Amino acid sequence: MPSLKYSIGVDLGGTTVKSGLVSSDGKIHEQFTLPSLGNEGPKVVIGQIKKAIHEVLQCVDGKSIEGIGVGAPGVVVKKGGIVKNPPNLSGWNEIPLGDELHKVFRMNVEVENDANAAAIAEAKFGAGKKYPDFLFVIWGTGVGGGIISDGKIYRGPFGGAGEIGHISINYNGAKCNCGAKGCVEAYIGQKHLSRRTAKILKNHPRSKILQLVGGDLSKIEPLHISLAADAGDKIARGILVEAGTFLGVAVGAVMNTLDFRVSIIGGGISAAGKYVFDAITESAKVHVLKPLRKDIMVIPAVLGNSAGILGAAGLLL
Amino acid sequence: MPSLKYSIGVDLGGTTVKSGLVSSDGKIHEQFTLPSLGNEGPKVVIGQIKKAIHEVLQCVDGKSIEGIGVGAPGVVVKKGGIVKNPPNLSGWNEIPLGDELHKVFRMNVEVENDANAAAIAEAKFGAGKKYPDFLFVIWGTGVGGGIISDGKIYRGPFGGAGEIGHISINYNGAKCNCGAKGCVEAYIGQKHLSRRTAKILKNHPRSKILQLVGGDLSKIEPLHISLAADAGDKIARGILVEAGTFLGVAVGAVMNTLDFRVSIIGGGISAAGKYVFDAITESAKVHVLKPLRKDIMVIPAVLGNSAGILGAAGLLL
Repeated sequence: MPSLKYSIGVDLGGTTVKSGLVSSDGKIHEQFTLPSLGNEGPKVVIGQIKKAIHEVLQCVDGKSIEGIGVGAPGVVVKKGGIVKNPPNLSGWNEIPLGDELHKVFRMNVEVENDANAAAIAEAKFGAGKKYPDFLFVIWGTGVGGGIISDGKIYRGPFGGAGEIGHISINYNGAKCNCGAKGCVEAYIGQKHLSRRTAKILKNHPRSKILQLVGGDLSKIEPLHISLAADAGDKIARGILVEAGTFLGVAVGAVMNTLDFRVSIIGGGISAAGKYVFDAITESAKVHVLKPLRKDIMVIPAVLGNSAGILGAAGLLL
Repeated sequence: MPSLKYSIGVDLGGTTVKSGLVSSDGKIHEQFTLPSLGNEGPKVVIGQIKKAIHEVLQCVDGKSIEGIGVGAPGVVVKKGGIVKNPPNLSGWNEIPLGDELHKVFRMNVEVENDANAAAIAEAKFGAGKKYPDFLFVIWGTGVGGGIISDGKIYRGPFGGAGEIGHISINYNGAKCNCGAKGCVEAYIGQKHLSRRTAKILKNHPRSKILQLVGGDLSKIEPLHISLAADAGDKIARGILVEAGTFLGVAVGAVMNTLDFRVSIIGGGISAAGKYVFDAITESAKVHVLKPLRKDIMVIPAVLGNSAGILGAAGLLL
């Protein structure tokens, strides 16, 4: 067995910065969580990132470190590790985060979009280990994704590939925040699901979903619906099956385009039961070319919240 | 200036086999067209391909030839040049066309899917020369395509990438021959356009379209509608603008997925006027993420019927 390599993974979000020491077998040895202070501007946020890295460095214990990987929201330009317009981090336009961290820590630094980092994590350490080509989908507040092609992340010419949330599944459909009509995110993103679920729950006040959000309809996330569905709540199941059917249309579009057979679904929904994945699979099968149908697979991501740190660290491993 | 290289390009279709001697500056020096005899089984078809190649070899005039490239319908497996289930060639299951031709001609032989070959032609010699990344669309009887990524064809894991005709633009939309609902091909493929146009023409018997097909409504192809539209026929223009708007939804889906900005449209429609391309562009812009919108370009292919030979030959140049 080859000896293990180590790197530092950083998962930057709007609320927290998470960091960890990761080995090349996909284990997180030490992990830290700090507030990202996203409202206080990039200088403060970068300070928090540095702190999170320092925390890990104190636990390295003489191990040789390959470098630092960062998963960040927004579009990332690889050269310089530039993070552009990350949602939920205010006052942030274009910042060469990679160069900034390299100056301080004098190590290799790689920055990647957070959805891409999660896709890389599933490819290297998770549900995608067996599949050289798959579409990774994050289904949470919004719908994002990443493309793994021949074992590597496909970034596209400008680093933004995999944004499947704004594939239109109905040219004359529901209006999306982005201004377009029928984006899959406008059907299955948190806001839509929450709104739709809230409407339905008015006639079903005993649904498990209501208990899970403490009666606050504004707090419904896909995770709550899926937890309720797993507990047998029929209302929740119906909503998720319908949402899965919508997602399958977009997944099918990507599979036709890239000739892929496998999609791995992460985000809150990845905890949901088989019925959701069956719904996505069936819908994707209906919407791909015939020769692809029998091989279509839609499976849950397995790394959960660790995917961010693991994928970021995986950039160096 | 580097000295020119030469190769032989073969464009295999259901009706004809075309062959040509092509130089690395994208010129076809000699060109031959034979019937492909697609109904008489693969042996006969392969015989015609060989004849077409022999015709070219007689004009080579001592030039060194890099090899033979073939563009074929159906899915192509690169190893062995296997052509799988080509539509319009009967009795053809899986045939190692590349190996067969190599045995006879003792040259490098490369086989590629015909839409991919046309995409390669536009990338090397045509409208795509300036663009390392673009979606190529063939809009004719059906809707097919090819993906050029970083200057090279993206084949996907099984060689079938770029099949955008069966992207659903309406999950509950028009029924397609493939069994799915809302495929863009079910809106803008020849059959749909013909049916839709025929219906409209009943109330507009003076439309140019009718003259162009000699009054035979069953013969309407996108080319006729576009010729009529170019001649000022308002009915034809309306139909094409609507169809372009539909195509733009699918083009937008691919641009979001791959973070592309450019699409090149070939097939009969590439002869159509600016208004069609404006319609596709506007619709694609509406259906991509905001940061992409200002850079979206949809432009006509420029190589027309020569794209098949040029792209096939280009596999060796």
